[in-house]
Amino acid sequence: MKLSPNDTIGIIGGGQLGRMLALAAAPLGLKCHVLDPDSNAPAMQVCAERTVAAYSDKAALADMASRVAVVTYEFENVDFEAASALPLVRPGPRALEVSQDRWIEKRFLAECGCPTANTMPVATPEAAALAFKSFGGGGAILKTRRLGYDGKGQHRLEPGDDAAAAFTALGGVPCVLESVVPFAFEVSTVIARAVDGSVKAYECPQNTHAGGILRTSQVPSPLPDDTATTLQAQAAQVAEALDYVGVLAIEWFVLPDGSCLANEMAPRVHNSGHWTQEGAFASQFENHMRAVAGWTLAPTHTIAPVRMENLIGDDVERWRSAVDGGSSRLHLYGKAETRPGRKMGHINHVG
Amino acid sequence: MKLSPNDTIGIIGGGQLGRMLALAAAPLGLKCHVLDPDSNAPAMQVCAERTVAAYSDKAALADMASRVAVVTYEFENVDFEAASALPLVRPGPRALEVSQDRWIEKRFLAECGCPTANTMPVATPEAAALAFKSFGGGGAILKTRRLGYDGKGQHRLEPGDDAAAAFTALGGVPCVLESVVPFAFEVSTVIARAVDGSVKAYECPQNTHAGGILRTSQVPSPLPDDTATTLQAQAAQVAEALDYVGVLAIEWFVLPDGSCLANEMAPRVHNSGHWTQEGAFASQFENHMRAVAGWTLAPTHTIAPVRMENLIGDDVERWRSAVDGGSSRLHLYGKAETRPGRKMGHINHVG
Repeated sequence: MKLSPNDTIGIIGGGQLGRMLALAAAPLGLKCHVLDPDSNAPAMQVCAERTVAAYSDKAALADMASRVAVVTYEFENVDFEAASALPLVRPGPRALEVSQDRWIEKRFLAECGCPTANTMPVATPEAAALAFKSFGGGGAILKTRRLGYDGKGQHRLEPGDDAAAAFTALGGVPCVLESVVPFAFEVSTVIARAVDGSVKAYECPQNTHAGGILRTSQVPSPLPDDTATTLQAQAAQVAEALDYVGVLAIEWFVLPDGSCLANEMAPRVHNSGHWTQEGAFASQFENHMRAVAGWTLAPTHTIAPVRMENLIGDDVERWRSAVDGGSSRLHLYGKAETRPGRKMGHINHVG
Repeated sequence: MKLSPNDTIGIIGGGQLGRMLALAAAPLGLKCHVLDPDSNAPAMQVCAERTVAAYSDKAALADMASRVAVVTYEFENVDFEAASALPLVRPGPRALEVSQDRWIEKRFLAECGCPTANTMPVATPEAAALAFKSFGGGGAILKTRRLGYDGKGQHRLEPGDDAAAAFTALGGVPCVLESVVPFAFEVSTVIARAVDGSVKAYECPQNTHAGGILRTSQVPSPLPDDTATTLQAQAAQVAEALDYVGVLAIEWFVLPDGSCLANEMAPRVHNSGHWTQEGAFASQFENHMRAVAGWTLAPTHTIAPVRMENLIGDDVERWRSAVDGGSSRLHLYGKAETRPGRKMGHINHVG
């Protein structure tokens, strides 16, 4: 299925990622139909067609799908069954199934040749305590298997902490316990895969997090070129195994000895790829939409060094200095309400 | 009046210029409310709010204006009286008044220090014949004073042609007769002026026309740097005289001896500035919206050489090669119907 200009792409989710996908689709002549429960969501402000409905509303999803040529999504917690029932979804629902569950995801990454930190599935307080003990006294992070993002649904455990109590505090739901990795720095791979299987990779940015939320992404990174090439090839293997169509991101820990461990994957455009808007020949958003449309991918090479800075909560007040700054490119998301921890926009510092 | 993120800018006109203005406003966090008689117009597909109404519908214009912080427009044939009645319009209605009438515009350009080709207002067939004769046997172009664009409302006269008959053929409406200038090439100045009077200029592109329609714009151009500086200063004088806010374009003929004559001005973003989307640090669309918002202007320096190629009528079929071409950036306008002479999109060939 290859789209033509004036065809419409359905986007499940109207947040900032959907917004930037819609903005990238417009110059390609592709219309967007956004489905989101909030009529004032960021992507709703820049699209041709809208459906205001819950993500779990199968009738609304089916109706939207019937009006578009292909459906994509901006977040991985789309209902798998609902997505599977739609006629054409890119990336395919298998990517959702894998990335919606941290344990399945970790196993899948390992099976695709991406090493990960030691991780155990834990379903009871006792299992959590046992697993924590088995890590031999190092720190660990207990994470719910499903529905976590931006540090939510996580609990950091230091040596001596009570893992069983932490499990209960997270709601007693199925979790994974991951051993904490003493990494030197973090990077990510952001690649795009077309319907014909061809893959293009962006330069790997160095990422910094605080409070479980991405703060900055920067190219160039200190990652050696040959390591970057290896990580990109590993990411391509993951995409290949999923017969993936679109942009796929994997976050990696780089250890002091230079080896790398996959942390998590996202079957979508990713915050650590926002630098590509000004830093790459074509952005991750454009290449996702090209892939979803069945088109060839655009070049991904870097055209300028960029440091992407997230505007989280009150950081959004920095929009003024970004507007006045000679090398800053502002990207605001149109969110009406500023809340602590909420991603309100980002600035790409160019050059 | 200085806007804040999440404020709304009204745009009169939902064509491709309005569309690209809306796409440039979104990353700044500014919403757009588009007024156009066509509910499926290009800009309608990418904006937050819509009013479907005739441009002359004063009640609809007033209602739209009451819902936005400031109003701008994408074309110069907005009803002057209707625009004057709105609370805040940028650029101010005086720019409309001047550019809606080719004779007033030519006089105004001359009074601002911009030389023009010999031009005469003609209101009767006899006056047309007399003026043509006075040009001494060279070619001339008869143009309606009002409502012409893309070569419409024009008639080219070669030596020996019947100017009186041409006048009647154009409908007997007030016209200007312009002597044909044997130019070496054409360029344009695209500048932006902020509320505080500061001005930034883009590099001057070389333009080519065919059939009265712009075909290509290219930077760098063969224009000497000092001439470019002079033209940019002349354009700034025009903007100053209008207390102008926004992007202003002037098209120029460059004569074989290097002197330049102003051809026409446009109180808006301009087709010959489309190259700035990939070729300049910030595009003409962003800087127009920044100016209209009362913000500082972004840098205008060139970051890559670009040849902009318009896709007119069936040219739009070239979208495929642009998608597959490694250095092409596609910009389609979302127009449902392809018609001869209709601007369907453009390609920026980068590098």
